[in-house]
Amino acid sequence: MILSRARLAGGAARAVLVNSGQANAATGPRGAADAESIANSAATAAGIGQNELLACSTGVIGEPLHFDAMLDALPTLVADLSSDGGDAFAQAIMTTDTVEKQATADAGGFRVGGCAKGVGMISPNLATMLAFVTTDAHVSTADLDLLTREQLGPRFEAITVDGCPSTNDTVLLFASGADQSDSVRPGTPAWEQLSSAIGEVGSSLAEQLIQDGEGATHVLVIDVVGATWEQDARAVANAVANSPLVKTAAFGEDPNPGRIVQAVGSADVTMDPSVLDVWIGDVQVVLAGTIPPEYFEGELRSQAQLAMKESEVLMTISLGSGPGSSRVLGCDLSYDYIRINGEYTT
Amino acid sequence: MILSRARLAGGAARAVLVNSGQANAATGPRGAADAESIANSAATAAGIGQNELLACSTGVIGEPLHFDAMLDALPTLVADLSSDGGDAFAQAIMTTDTVEKQATADAGGFRVGGCAKGVGMISPNLATMLAFVTTDAHVSTADLDLLTREQLGPRFEAITVDGCPSTNDTVLLFASGADQSDSVRPGTPAWEQLSSAIGEVGSSLAEQLIQDGEGATHVLVIDVVGATWEQDARAVANAVANSPLVKTAAFGEDPNPGRIVQAVGSADVTMDPSVLDVWIGDVQVVLAGTIPPEYFEGELRSQAQLAMKESEVLMTISLGSGPGSSRVLGCDLSYDYIRINGEYTT
Repeated sequence: MILSRARLAGGAARAVLVNSGQANAATGPRGAADAESIANSAATAAGIGQNELLACSTGVIGEPLHFDAMLDALPTLVADLSSDGGDAFAQAIMTTDTVEKQATADAGGFRVGGCAKGVGMISPNLATMLAFVTTDAHVSTADLDLLTREQLGPRFEAITVDGCPSTNDTVLLFASGADQSDSVRPGTPAWEQLSSAIGEVGSSLAEQLIQDGEGATHVLVIDVVGATWEQDARAVANAVANSPLVKTAAFGEDPNPGRIVQAVGSADVTMDPSVLDVWIGDVQVVLAGTIPPEYFEGELRSQAQLAMKESEVLMTISLGSGPGSSRVLGCDLSYDYIRINGEYTT
Repeated sequence: MILSRARLAGGAARAVLVNSGQANAATGPRGAADAESIANSAATAAGIGQNELLACSTGVIGEPLHFDAMLDALPTLVADLSSDGGDAFAQAIMTTDTVEKQATADAGGFRVGGCAKGVGMISPNLATMLAFVTTDAHVSTADLDLLTREQLGPRFEAITVDGCPSTNDTVLLFASGADQSDSVRPGTPAWEQLSSAIGEVGSSLAEQLIQDGEGATHVLVIDVVGATWEQDARAVANAVANSPLVKTAAFGEDPNPGRIVQAVGSADVTMDPSVLDVWIGDVQVVLAGTIPPEYFEGELRSQAQLAMKESEVLMTISLGSGPGSSRVLGCDLSYDYIRINGEYTT
């Protein structure tokens, strides 16, 4: 990632070399030298400039790259390059992923494709998130950067499996210009269409990542509205999505308003508890800061429980009447999360 | 807690009424009225002033107090008051606790006793932390406040089961003055002895709480040293103690330096990764920001694995050469945590 950042600062890139198995993080000066050296060899083999090739690693933190094996593989890699290679690439970058994640979209004559790996925005040792999106549109490097920040960043930042940011998270957007039209510029109808197609691919990949979150049996969709500031809404949504008590309640399909209230209160956000409203699905379980006393006896709880049994569980939290809102996607915390991460050995 | 705070602001307290079963949180105006009313009835029954009685609740968030049952029990409660009632009290306040937690200390002729309940600093619905410490020393209310802040606060703030602060966490320190000596004042040898005895009881109760943390099979002792500021050290220690990846590695007894590095990096603290050192037990697993390449093959890893098998696992993290340090106690994340919190139903 350090290498890729340095090279991107120098202009444009045409290729990316990805290895899975070793994350090449916490590997010190040797790790940096290995990355530089293998990237340069790959660029030479592919016949492009050294600064035109980026490198991503995913795998065990601290383990050195299997340098010789990678070097030996370069001629075959280059010989096998193909416009039909998307599936093979999406499979090759998987680590603890159980399914490959790909998405495509078309709009205004532009084609957008992407693939991703990882079990969240997160980092079990073998599960760093990497996402690659390509388009045939003709876009300047500055405008590509804008599209990445506007259309891809927010979507991948709004998913969380276990609240652990990774050492190696990367999202890359490439534009080939193969559609031959004029460069797409902000403020034009073509830009709107391209933006929307890229956003659609980003949303799909982000949702596929969270569905494949380690041990996940339910996706949590946390909508926070009515906050004073968007960042307050985001902080509350993250606190709820990352709360082990909310996540285990989701696994147990238990419509537990107390745990949601506790998670909301644990966010470092100033709020008035007496205007807090919470819904599970479309069932209101907290009204003006109070769980209705009849909730624990009756029909309301049964309705909320049905909503908890859905594969996508929606929790809506209103903090008041402010304009700030945020949506975060999370997942439940299951026995399988413990199995995958507790039985995995370095 | 709101009621207790208001009453303590008015002076001293002589008694505390505790119920387990309902937390009386998120219960709105009715909850506040219930608390006020039952506390006043209890004070009248005990023959003390209304402002001399505090009230604590632990249990399901949102469920109203079982007011009539509590009211009916008051005469028996008062009739059974006894200087031998410590064990009965420690048992009565338990919720999901598997053992009662008590501690005593003597120093300089003062006696200090305490008990606590809860599975951490934290809040599974039935597991709010409450701690009560008593002494026969003669201490002014202002000095009791000082002792609580200096000797009890830091100890209970340094434990975490799942990073979820509770709606109802409470620590209360009572001094009876029954030893009849002059009031103990700061800066005297007697103060030092009393402080130390109170600190000893606090440390013991905090450690008993973490040992009984939900599903815990290992206690994690996270020592962070060499930080620029103490709060930086605390933030890093909390990030490591609350990391689901570190916690599942501890459950799996896997000496995984990469997960510790990831958790350290996830804390919102400015640091220089190239001077990061990490030990598991007394085995150095990260040296100057790098996991030694030989770690993954040899003897070092076996030694670190032995340290992970201890019931108390020590992780020491040095961020540099600054004066800031902090110790946090945590526990591992096991199948039983999921069982307890996933199968528990509101």
